[in-house]
Parts: sequence; structure tokens; C-alpha cells
Amino acid sequence: MTVKLLLDRKREGGELSPDDIRALIDAYTRGEVPDYQMAAFAMAVCCKGMSAVETHALTDAMQHSGACLSWPGLSADKHSTGGIGDKLSLVIQPLAASCGISVPSLAGRGLGLTGGTVDKLESIPGYNAGLSLEDFKRVVAECGVSIAAQTAEIAPADKKLYALRDVTGTVPSIPLIVGSILSKKLAEGAGTLVFDVKCGGGAFMKTRTDACALARALVDGAKAAGRKAAALVTAMDEPLGWAVGNALEIEEAIQVLRGGVCGALGDRALPCDVVELSVELAALMVSLAKGVELDAARAECRANLANGAAYGRFAEMVKLHGGDLDAFASRSRGERRVVVAPRSGYVAKVGAEGIAQAAFDLGAGRAKAGDAIDFAAGVVLSVARGDRVETGQPIAEVVAAEHPEKLSQAEELVRDAIALTDEPPEMYPLVLERMQ
Amino acid sequence: MTVKLLLDRKREGGELSPDDIRALIDAYTRGEVPDYQMAAFAMAVCCKGMSAVETHALTDAMQHSGACLSWPGLSADKHSTGGIGDKLSLVIQPLAASCGISVPSLAGRGLGLTGGTVDKLESIPGYNAGLSLEDFKRVVAECGVSIAAQTAEIAPADKKLYALRDVTGTVPSIPLIVGSILSKKLAEGAGTLVFDVKCGGGAFMKTRTDACALARALVDGAKAAGRKAAALVTAMDEPLGWAVGNALEIEEAIQVLRGGVCGALGDRALPCDVVELSVELAALMVSLAKGVELDAARAECRANLANGAAYGRFAEMVKLHGGDLDAFASRSRGERRVVVAPRSGYVAKVGAEGIAQAAFDLGAGRAKAGDAIDFAAGVVLSVARGDRVETGQPIAEVVAAEHPEKLSQAEELVRDAIALTDEPPEMYPLVLERMQ
Repeated sequence: MTVKLLLDRKREGGELSPDDIRALIDAYTRGEVPDYQMAAFAMAVCCKGMSAVETHALTDAMQHSGACLSWPGLSADKHSTGGIGDKLSLVIQPLAASCGISVPSLAGRGLGLTGGTVDKLESIPGYNAGLSLEDFKRVVAECGVSIAAQTAEIAPADKKLYALRDVTGTVPSIPLIVGSILSKKLAEGAGTLVFDVKCGGGAFMKTRTDACALARALVDGAKAAGRKAAALVTAMDEPLGWAVGNALEIEEAIQVLRGGVCGALGDRALPCDVVELSVELAALMVSLAKGVELDAARAECRANLANGAAYGRFAEMVKLHGGDLDAFASRSRGERRVVVAPRSGYVAKVGAEGIAQAAFDLGAGRAKAGDAIDFAAGVVLSVARGDRVETGQPIAEVVAAEHPEKLSQAEELVRDAIALTDEPPEMYPLVLERMQ
Repeated sequence: MTVKLLLDRKREGGELSPDDIRALIDAYTRGEVPDYQMAAFAMAVCCKGMSAVETHALTDAMQHSGACLSWPGLSADKHSTGGIGDKLSLVIQPLAASCGISVPSLAGRGLGLTGGTVDKLESIPGYNAGLSLEDFKRVVAECGVSIAAQTAEIAPADKKLYALRDVTGTVPSIPLIVGSILSKKLAEGAGTLVFDVKCGGGAFMKTRTDACALARALVDGAKAAGRKAAALVTAMDEPLGWAVGNALEIEEAIQVLRGGVCGALGDRALPCDVVELSVELAALMVSLAKGVELDAARAECRANLANGAAYGRFAEMVKLHGGDLDAFASRSRGERRVVVAPRSGYVAKVGAEGIAQAAFDLGAGRAKAGDAIDFAAGVVLSVARGDRVETGQPIAEVVAAEHPEKLSQAEELVRDAIALTDEPPEMYPLVLERMQ
């Protein structure tokens, strides 16, 4: 393999052989191909694309650059491309496990406006997400589910390439995104993979066309690697649920896990979008993994939310990771400020970007790897698109423990993000497309 | 300037501002932008192109990364994109100087199948091409012309970027090529620039479309920088002249400089293509620099070839560079082997690539910077396209001093490169396009 010839071919829009791609990735992982050549390659792929065969070879090479796990019996995992207030993994993973499926789930820390699933879990005092692969396997074996941080043994080629793409303007390429997501998920070893591809202003994929293309490529790639797979393309123009912020989202996830029926009473009504989408995605995992009808899987999931089985799995997982839910319940909650409606009207939109920016400013995210997070910080919404509000009515709260001086500015951001109009807005479905 | 944002914009086919491009090139030259980001940028430019305004900004930034010379009175230079047997600079530069124009000419060493202009000159014993800029200026002031090697003070940004492009598959991009060629030529400071853009199998630009686009961009770029400029697009499917190889080409250039009339007698007829194209390009320089009619400039050039004035300039330049033409005339000439026609017929084609490969195999070129060159080695043709030959008639000679054992293989290559057919081939003009 001569890297220059591969670069020439890709620059001219030609197709590389699987052997060439494998040799390139292997040599790059070993440090034999310099970053400048790999950066040129990544940019050429951004501009000229990759065929399904090339994408599969890239994925396969990155998957096999590290450890590849496997699981006895039925196993499944769900991957989301990430959205604002997306705490679904905290519900879905234990829910699917409660239906008798092993759910080994390696997740990322957040980079960007809000924390990742691992950050959220670490807002539970004592929760250790940094398990060795051996401990990860043990937790899955004991309670059917573990959500742990990505380890260095899984797809090291992706880790290296992703860091390079991040600084060379080569992130937004569907073949490279598919290779990055799938190489890790395939190495993780679950037999069924369900993808939640977010689409809209609060998501990485801004257009439905791009989101559908990514969903299709993820499902096809997982199937090409011998897994069962499906994807939902779901709307991400407004935050999912009420809470945005690490501990706030854990709290909301626990409410959903303990309640389970959309609209049931607690301090406030359960968020229908979180409940319904959790059931939908968990049911897809169960239905594919077990080979049962989707409706039967939905019924099982709803039952396991209502009967406490899903929450039981969550609580056990937290305990096996060293987490203390009692300490979480009695944690310091920071300072709060209520955001009120500046006028009467209908909630026409809750802008995901504005809410996320407010949460970030309050300390809920990190600008660069290693930055500290204020777990208590964030935004809790009281209204959703379509709701009727009156002047002065509370529409949200902003929360901060470490930087309460930032509450005023965040209050403004949140008020501006919630658009109020005289006429009720058109409503749209949460699930935009289904792919199998 | 945030490099990542520039990369994003160029990846999506957007246009960068002149300030952005200047900041990028300046930071790269200072080592503040890493190679991997610049490689991604170069690949994005290869795939998405650059506007004339962007190309001008790139050229300008690279030009001003180092020393910028200027010359009193009229000055001109000719640049060729390079072809097989292209010894035209050796004739044209002194010829234009003999017409009263300063010709400061910084040239490259060869990388690829045959030597560059500087390598050819260094086959003259004692010729020192590695002048300081001060000595370069002094030689131009004394005899009106100097052909010296590119120095590190001229366009260091181009030197750095070119080395990176060479290993990242990002050479074939017209804006990047224009930036590389023009930044050096503009820094060299000649008021008139004439470009000979080669087109065909023996050239970097394989198609007429690409060659015309490059010629147009070079002329436009030079004019945008305030210079007078013109270009010829010329055929390069067959070697120029009879000789391919360093000392062999010097010898042929001297014959042209001393004879000057196409077809005049010497050991063999002077090569018409070399004579005619030299007159054409030198006349363009003279006509643009002096503001006289092209026909008048042609007449002056023909006269100065015939009356020895051009050769006089060449001999003086060689002397001022320390070269010894007597020692050159009595040099060891290596071993020769005659290639004969395997059949009777018409010369349908003299394949430039095959002849160049034979010359390279004999030692006339270098595979990597720093490789030694056998100055004596090369190929001397006795026939050109359209000639009638009989079986057994000499059609070429292959020459080697250091590796005579390679003569047999080269003989075969040369025989195979000269196609013989029953019918005479169609003839085509040497000058394909003119741009001003």
C-alpha cells in the first residue's frame, strides 16, 4: 500500500479496495502513517464520499484495531447521536435489561454544550463509570446492564482518527461518522443495535435528508457486520423532557423509570416524549433481539416501567458501579431562579440551542476534555410546545451551584429561547422515520 | 482566524477572505498551524477549488513570506511547467537578454524522470548555480541574465507547502499550482512573465482543458499582481529537440544558440521545434517588456541567434557562474549505443514517457532529492514524428557513463517508444493556444 496513491485515488473520487483501507487504518494506528496524510485522507472522504463497501471496510478495520467483546444469550444496545435533554439511555438500557436482554453499553463523556451519559451518571455520588472491561463484563453478567465509559482498548483507531478529525474540519462526513460510531458499537459486541438518529436544530444532523442517510448507513453497516439493527430518526428541535443538565436529567430519568405512564403525577407530569420514545426504542431492541412482534415488546416494556422492574435494574446497576442513590436524593441542589412568561400566548417553540447554551453557561457542559462540570447546573422546563401560558406564569427554572452569579443571564437566554405566539403552533411527531 | 472554521468553509465549497488566507499562510510559515491542518486545507482546495480572488491572496501571501526582488529597467522571465527534452530556458533566457532585457531566472532542480534546468547547467564543469541573492543580482547586472537555483529566501511558504503537498496527494490543483509557480516568479521580481504550459503525455498537464485552465490562471494571476504576462500552451507528447539528458541538452542548446536557423547544418540538422519555440517565447518576452510588435520582436530574436549575440550572453553568464565551456566541450562523453529501426515505415510517434524513462534508467534523473545524476547519460534522437525510415537505419543513440550495463535495456525502451507505421501520421502544431 502506498498512501500517496490511495490519496490520489480518493481525491479523484475513485473507490479504494477493502485491503487498501484496512492497510491504511492499521498503519495509521501503529503510527506508520503520519497525521498529515490521514488528515488529507479524511478531507478527501468528506469531499468525495465512500461507497458502502469502503465504509464497511473502514468500520471493520477500526473495530478490529482493539478488543472485541462478545456476550452469551441475547444482547442489545441503543446508540443516540445526541440531543439536548437526551437522557433516554438512562431509561432504555435498564428497561431492555428488565426484559431479559443483556445490555452492555459503553458511552462517551460530553464535549459540547451538555454532558454525555457518563457525565450524567457520575452526578450520582460514588458512581464509577471507569470500569475495566473485566468489571464491565461482571456488572452486565450480574444485573444485565452496565453503562460505563469507553475504554482505551475499544477501537483505538477510532480514538486516534476522531481526535484528528476534530481539529481538521473533517467531522461531518457520513462514512466517517458511521465508521466511528459503528466500530465502537460492533467492538462492544451486542447482537442487536438500535440507533436513535437525532435531526434538527439541537442535533448534529440538521436536515432530515442527512439524518436519514446516516440512519440508513448505520443500519446497513451493522447488518453487514452480522448484527440485527434498526433506527429511528427523531426530532431534535426542542429539548427531550423537562430537564437539561446532569443531575437534573438523572432525576427525570428516575421519575420515568419509577412511574412509567405518560402524564402520571409526581411533582409534575412525566414528560410524554421521554416515556414514549424510551418505550419505542427499548421495544425495538427487545423485538429484534427476541424475534417477537413490536407490539408485544412495547407491552412488555410498558409493564416493566409500571411494575418497577426497569427501575430495579437501574438501581442495581448504580449499586454495582458504586453509586449511592440515597446520597443522590439528598444532594445539594444549588440555587434556582424561576423564569416567567413575558406575555400570554402559546408556546410556539422551545429552542433546543438556546436552552443548551443556557445550561452550558451555567456549568453543565465542558468546552474541552478535562473541564470540570457543575452536576447540579441546568435548566428545568415547565412548558412544552403547544402549551397555553399567561403573563407571569413560570415557564422554566434555571439552576446553578458553583456559579449562581450566572443565573440572571441564563434566565434571559431561556426566556428568549421559548417563543410565545397568539396562535397555537402546528404539532409534529417525534419519530420522523423508521429504518430496519 | 480559527483554522477549523476555515477548513469547514472550504470543505463546504465556500470562499475564504483574502485576510483569512493570508493569516493561514503566515501562521503556517511560522509553524503555528500544524501540517495536518494544512494537509486537510490542501485536500479541500483540490476537491473544491478556489476563486481567482482566493488564488491571488494565496499567491500574494506565499510571495511575501520571503524576499521580494526588483530590477531596474526592463526585465522578464520565462517559466515552463516542464517537459521531456525541454532545454528552452538555456536558449530563451540569454536570447531575451541579448535583446536588452534583464532576465533574472531562478530555476529548480529536477525531481522525476529528467533533470531540471539547474541540473543541466551543472553539467558544465565549474558552473555554480547556488548563488546568494547578492551574487545573483550582480550577475544579472553584469551580463543581463543569470540562471541560478531557487534560494531559501524566496517564498519559504511555498517550499514548506510544496513538500507537504508532495506527500499528501494534493499536487494536482490549479489554484495550488498557480500559487506555487507565481509566488516564486513574482518574488523573483521580473516585470514581464511568459509561461510555457506543456500539455500531453510527457507533461504534468495531460489534457488541453487542464493546460489551458492553468495557463489562463497564471496569466491572470501575474496581471493581478501588476506584471505583464502571456502564455503559450504547447504540445508535449514527444520530446523537444533531439537530446534528453543533462549534458546532451546543454550541447543541443549551444548548437541552437550558435546556429539559430531551423535546419541549418552542424553534426545534424538543428531541431526546428526548439528553434521555433525559443524564438516564439523569447519574442513574447521582448514584445511585452518593450511594448513592441511581436513580429519585430521575432525578427530581433532571430537576428540575435544568427549573429552570435545570444550565444555571447550565454557564454558570459556561464563564465560569471564559474563554468568552463572548454572543459565542457572536451568532457568525457560516456558509452553510446545506436538504436536502429526494426522495420521500415513512418515515425508515427516518439513517445515522450518512454524516452524519459530510458533517460532516467540510464541515470539522467533523480528519484529523490539529493540523488546523484549522471550528467552524460541520456537519449539522442535522430528522427522525429513524420520522418520516413528504413529497416536498420539509426533512429536514436542511448548514452551512459556510470552505468553502461543499462544501455541494452534502454535501447529496447527507446525502440519501443518510437512507433513506426505504414502511413505517414497526421502532423499537429507545437503551439496549441496563446493567452495574453
